[in-house]
Amino acid sequence: MISLAVSPRIRHSPFYSSTVAAGATDFTVYNKMLMPTSFGDPAGEYQALTERVAMWDVGSERQVQISGPDADLCAQYLSSRDLSKMVEGQGKYVAMCDSDGVLLNDPVLLKLSGGRYWFSIADSDMLLWCKAVVAERGFDVKVCEPDVSPLAIQGPLAEDLAADLFGEHVRSLKYFWFIETQLDGIPVVVCRSGWSKQGGFELFLQDGSCGTQLWDTVAAAGERYGVAPGAPNQTERVESGLLSWGGDTTPQSNPYEAGMAAYVQPNIEARFIGKQALQKIEADGPDRLLVGLVFDVATEVGATWMIAERAPVCIGADQVGTLSVVVCSPRMGRTIGVAQIDRCVVESGDAVSVWGPAGLIAASITSLPFA
Amino acid sequence: MISLAVSPRIRHSPFYSSTVAAGATDFTVYNKMLMPTSFGDPAGEYQALTERVAMWDVGSERQVQISGPDADLCAQYLSSRDLSKMVEGQGKYVAMCDSDGVLLNDPVLLKLSGGRYWFSIADSDMLLWCKAVVAERGFDVKVCEPDVSPLAIQGPLAEDLAADLFGEHVRSLKYFWFIETQLDGIPVVVCRSGWSKQGGFELFLQDGSCGTQLWDTVAAAGERYGVAPGAPNQTERVESGLLSWGGDTTPQSNPYEAGMAAYVQPNIEARFIGKQALQKIEADGPDRLLVGLVFDVATEVGATWMIAERAPVCIGADQVGTLSVVVCSPRMGRTIGVAQIDRCVVESGDAVSVWGPAGLIAASITSLPFA
Repeated sequence: MISLAVSPRIRHSPFYSSTVAAGATDFTVYNKMLMPTSFGDPAGEYQALTERVAMWDVGSERQVQISGPDADLCAQYLSSRDLSKMVEGQGKYVAMCDSDGVLLNDPVLLKLSGGRYWFSIADSDMLLWCKAVVAERGFDVKVCEPDVSPLAIQGPLAEDLAADLFGEHVRSLKYFWFIETQLDGIPVVVCRSGWSKQGGFELFLQDGSCGTQLWDTVAAAGERYGVAPGAPNQTERVESGLLSWGGDTTPQSNPYEAGMAAYVQPNIEARFIGKQALQKIEADGPDRLLVGLVFDVATEVGATWMIAERAPVCIGADQVGTLSVVVCSPRMGRTIGVAQIDRCVVESGDAVSVWGPAGLIAASITSLPFA
Repeated sequence: MISLAVSPRIRHSPFYSSTVAAGATDFTVYNKMLMPTSFGDPAGEYQALTERVAMWDVGSERQVQISGPDADLCAQYLSSRDLSKMVEGQGKYVAMCDSDGVLLNDPVLLKLSGGRYWFSIADSDMLLWCKAVVAERGFDVKVCEPDVSPLAIQGPLAEDLAADLFGEHVRSLKYFWFIETQLDGIPVVVCRSGWSKQGGFELFLQDGSCGTQLWDTVAAAGERYGVAPGAPNQTERVESGLLSWGGDTTPQSNPYEAGMAAYVQPNIEARFIGKQALQKIEADGPDRLLVGLVFDVATEVGATWMIAERAPVCIGADQVGTLSVVVCSPRMGRTIGVAQIDRCVVESGDAVSVWGPAGLIAASITSLPFA
């Protein structure tokens, strides 16, 4: 762990003081905002997430809002996925790429009432990107970062909790669909989404001054379900094969190298940034693939194996990829990780190796998500 | 202090292991890279900087490189300052603004050999901004983040140290001018610059694999001058009135509100982003001004007064500005700070007040830098 100096350059989420009061022990900086990563009990947090319900401050998942007459055109131009049939109340997981097809971010895009879109972004400043594109291209839209901060509830009992809070109708929401509603007068967007595969919702708080009130309301309603404060969970997300943009990807990665092939449609009619480059990558096949690694190692080693920088994955003396995360999986009873590896190596099925805390460790490659 | 979780999303500077070995205790995240902020001895670090020479890992000050046939045109289009007379070997402190005149970054811009420019950036992802502008506008340039990481030497003896390392000719370098050279075969750009007013240089390492070698070489050569490891120093920078973009500024600040009026020239002939908006702001005068505050408080209080979020500055019940940093100044023997305050209040000369650790504290407004 590293001691982080305080600074107004690094923002606080509306839920910050609630998370500190709830015992947050570690943070990361995400979109220049503090985000809790642990409450000091990794096993308990995993258990709450996979067996009951966890609540997470993901306020640092900022929104880039596009609104105005050209909003449809502009949202499509910024996304490598067909949005032509997207309707209000619907969200889609999209790739945002540059003109070389490099993946700049992997947001969930929400289409809201009043012709507004929110790109709900990972850790890169797409506000700058979108502002520049809009100004230079002359789209008739406004781009801003609205006062919106998500609070996630995740886990098998999250739906029960959401139904208690917002009504039974939330049970019928499809994945990434949402409603715009209120909770005790607090404006929130309730979306079936979140960075786990345990099911759940993100409550997009639309008034930063009500962070503590929303946190307390959710915590109180969640008591009967054993809700526990937690944070985006590395162990569960690796087991589930969810992407960490900027962690699992490199500054050169394209969406095909990030496991996002299913969400990229370069051959649609609409214009969007990176279209030609992505057509070529799709035709040629990507150079690398995002895969799972299963290590030949006792799980105890995995539990203490923190990856601070992407580590080389090798066959003999040749580097064939990079490893970005290692966790000890309760579900599999194995030490597993996520790596980006040369496609020819993945297709060969050869074993690879990585330098771990106790020397060179062999690993086998598997597709994501882990079976 | 906050515990920061490790992650490959947050990069390491080429000097990272050297700073850890030298005893770095606290870090910040700057341009998604760890940057040391303290070595555990604030008084000693201030003394080394102001009386001898300090060496700082400022590798997180990343470069956005623009190169190619349209580089001159493009660099000017991205900067709110007249670059028409800029020559190779020269640097300039520039404002980068959006089309509303909002200050996006305050880099030093270096014009290098081979028609290359480096925007040496503060903590916002101008690589995204520049890539989008270039692609949409069709400038014939390449935009990239090169493998360049600055190591700063700052303090009254920094020039002696630089002369020992690179030769006597570096003494004749004017402020922000630089040379492209080598040190024991390591390619470096040596620029008279750095985030202090104690004099000194930034050594822009151009090969990240040589970070430890460069750090060790500078440390060894600096021994006779009493060089000490340090970090961008809040106390000295506040005394000297240097801007912390993103800390002292808000997401709405324009350069006139950030103390950068002298570096903005909206009435030049060349086209650049934000020109019209800046012309209007210059004509009307900015709404707010960046000023110094001198507090009516014992210096000991200032020493423990950490500003984690911009704090309201008030006159009675009315908020008239925001305070971004407070330090206990050895030079002035006073507790001082930097604030952005409504222009009419600044012009009135009225005293203001801020909630400090021991209650409401009165402060008088002064221009920057402190006299």
